[in-house]
Amino acid sequence: MVNSFNADSMAALDPARRAAVERRQRLLGPAYRLFYQNPVELREGRGTRLFDSQGHEYLDAYNNVVSVGHCHPHVVQAVHRQLSTLCTHTRYIQEGILDYAETMLPSYGGRIAAGGHMMFTCTGSEANDLALRIAKHATGKRGIIITEEAYHGNSDLTAGISASLGEASPLGEWVRTVPAPDSYLGNPDALGQKMAEDVTRQAWHLKRNGDGLAAFIADSLFSSDGVFATPGVLKPVADAVRAAGGLFVADEVQSGFGRSGDEFWGFQRHGIDPDIVSMGKPMGNGYPVAGIAVVPDVVERFGRDTRYFNTFGGNGVAMAAAMATLQVVRDENLQANAKAMGEKIQSGFRSLAARFPGIGDVRGAGLYIGVEMVADRATKAADADAATRIVNGLREKRVLISATGPRANVLKIRPPLVFTDADVDWLLRASAEVMAEVLA
Amino acid sequence: MVNSFNADSMAALDPARRAAVERRQRLLGPAYRLFYQNPVELREGRGTRLFDSQGHEYLDAYNNVVSVGHCHPHVVQAVHRQLSTLCTHTRYIQEGILDYAETMLPSYGGRIAAGGHMMFTCTGSEANDLALRIAKHATGKRGIIITEEAYHGNSDLTAGISASLGEASPLGEWVRTVPAPDSYLGNPDALGQKMAEDVTRQAWHLKRNGDGLAAFIADSLFSSDGVFATPGVLKPVADAVRAAGGLFVADEVQSGFGRSGDEFWGFQRHGIDPDIVSMGKPMGNGYPVAGIAVVPDVVERFGRDTRYFNTFGGNGVAMAAAMATLQVVRDENLQANAKAMGEKIQSGFRSLAARFPGIGDVRGAGLYIGVEMVADRATKAADADAATRIVNGLREKRVLISATGPRANVLKIRPPLVFTDADVDWLLRASAEVMAEVLA
Repeated sequence: MVNSFNADSMAALDPARRAAVERRQRLLGPAYRLFYQNPVELREGRGTRLFDSQGHEYLDAYNNVVSVGHCHPHVVQAVHRQLSTLCTHTRYIQEGILDYAETMLPSYGGRIAAGGHMMFTCTGSEANDLALRIAKHATGKRGIIITEEAYHGNSDLTAGISASLGEASPLGEWVRTVPAPDSYLGNPDALGQKMAEDVTRQAWHLKRNGDGLAAFIADSLFSSDGVFATPGVLKPVADAVRAAGGLFVADEVQSGFGRSGDEFWGFQRHGIDPDIVSMGKPMGNGYPVAGIAVVPDVVERFGRDTRYFNTFGGNGVAMAAAMATLQVVRDENLQANAKAMGEKIQSGFRSLAARFPGIGDVRGAGLYIGVEMVADRATKAADADAATRIVNGLREKRVLISATGPRANVLKIRPPLVFTDADVDWLLRASAEVMAEVLA
Repeated sequence: MVNSFNADSMAALDPARRAAVERRQRLLGPAYRLFYQNPVELREGRGTRLFDSQGHEYLDAYNNVVSVGHCHPHVVQAVHRQLSTLCTHTRYIQEGILDYAETMLPSYGGRIAAGGHMMFTCTGSEANDLALRIAKHATGKRGIIITEEAYHGNSDLTAGISASLGEASPLGEWVRTVPAPDSYLGNPDALGQKMAEDVTRQAWHLKRNGDGLAAFIADSLFSSDGVFATPGVLKPVADAVRAAGGLFVADEVQSGFGRSGDEFWGFQRHGIDPDIVSMGKPMGNGYPVAGIAVVPDVVERFGRDTRYFNTFGGNGVAMAAAMATLQVVRDENLQANAKAMGEKIQSGFRSLAARFPGIGDVRGAGLYIGVEMVADRATKAADADAATRIVNGLREKRVLISATGPRANVLKIRPPLVFTDADVDWLLRASAEVMAEVLA
């Protein structure tokens, strides 16, 4: 995993942190990963700031879950009020879940706004898993097409379509991949057309081997593929998916709820009308709530043949958290802030690119930004080492970002949507200092 | 689904409730189910009591999630304190998750207590899904053996091993079933031996068709199979599973955290040492938190080949909810209360059986109780209609229970563990009145 703590660094840790890391390995086992060569221990959060056990202040330029800021009082109060009143499930009638669904459905536009349904889970993994279960049931097919470094979740099904988990984590035999629309290494004028052709070819293979195409699924910002934000590229892809008889699942776990700045949902930057939209991470600002929105026809057979129940999914407290978070995103104009702060960050890194030839590309939408580090601008050869050293150098300056992409060389910057001008200045100042050390 | 609202009853609803049900179908679609012919609308909960929008008081003899009672102040405060301080994920060091794992691990005994690990998810479905992903990875096999009416979750993998979802919800092709150890219809002296023989036979089939046995998974109280609580029956089964090279996954989502009265974990009533234990529902008293405990050898290869991350799983607030819930279970001696109140409920229904021959069997452990309704005690012919009428009759008296089992004729009673003597009296009094009407 890009930016994971490596046990080889254990000896370099101070004794207290080393003891904590070893205790963690003993209790949680070998499958958990920490960030950074020098892991961060956290105690408190407020807005865009985090604090460790010594009270040191960190700038959070990474955590997209706490979209409206760490410990936003409106969300905290809404959760407390509902948790003190009633926390139960969807087999009783409760107004909160209905009010939330009614508020949300128009936001998707198209066929979903015209009469679609919402279904609630606890995690984005569960949302994608349910979306694909429904897609398989609706089409009677099982083939799924993804991008080459996709990440869609940790369940058996969604891990099986998450190529970014690495070669020792097998993809399902019914999975086919297509390259992401790489605006840096590819032909920027033909990204959508090429991707549509790739999808058509893979759908043909799935048809020929008997699986057939159930769905194409993508994160419209291609986060784990390296952050690609060219608008419109998914439109010809959606047409190709439909022509092949498959459903289009828009994975909005990363790109949704205003983060892209341009639109409330990432798929809307591509001008498409998806069959299923999945969402999660920022939906409850940290409370475990996620779900899907679905075109009625698509879920009809599933609803007739079976039922859906998720013990905690759609519980009253989850819905209170989600409604309060949505209110803050709207009341504080956070989509507009994401656009403004995102442009300021991209502009700042472009200025740094004039000083540092190691910056090969700066891209993104709103507050989802990738900065691609290269050893040589002419060949575009990746410099994963520089990316790692910048991420860890920033961490020592208490600025938290991470890295991503198949070449592990793309700085990943996706702060809470309440990021301010002062936060941008801190991020850029610290980045300039670290790059001056790393890229000298 | 047993005890689901049927749209045929729509015309009988009062106008306000009918409007709420129709609004719900429009917004949430066809896959959601409500309980009862006359669905319940809820606004508040306290302890073992629930209140609807008119302030009517209900006795909750059904909800096992709110194990320490609706809105327990210790849990509510713990969540509020942590949610106001920090809510973030497991890629930073936080003490809460480590303190919780350290507190819990000894409770499992055996190999897990001796050096096992805990991993955290948000839901029981995710916990079972992860347990089986790990089991498949560890064994290199994919076959799974379940009971005939098993329910283990709503993800693609766990729905594929949930026979109780009905015939239109297909089991995985790598799944084999065995009958549950039915202490009423089967030979009570040979339940474990018969089940072990069935497992051995199914494991042989899985081996012969090339799948091989990854795991056997069961809820030790066989909740969806009809509630069977004979202790010790899973011991020979665990031996048979091991002899066939598979792993034993103890699904404690229903039976764990003291509910059985006898032991903290349901599998401990069977004297076995499972490879993986999954848990969920009552773990955070309604906060979405779940997880697994696992023997080190079993997760070693999985941890080396891949990684596990769950955005909300193990977050600081989830761990605060779980720790507070555990403290209440221990401080208020709820396991002992489950035993005492469970015995009182069983004894009460046995007294009713002297009056009502329609009661064929009363069974269970602690506060998980099944009352099997029959048309004829000699033939043990099921009376699903009586069960439905009793469940709905109790609902009209504002006492909430449900029904279960492959014959849909078993009353399912599993209240919060804080159930009191007065609650038992209300439950038994109302049951006597309803049975007098239904079984007259």
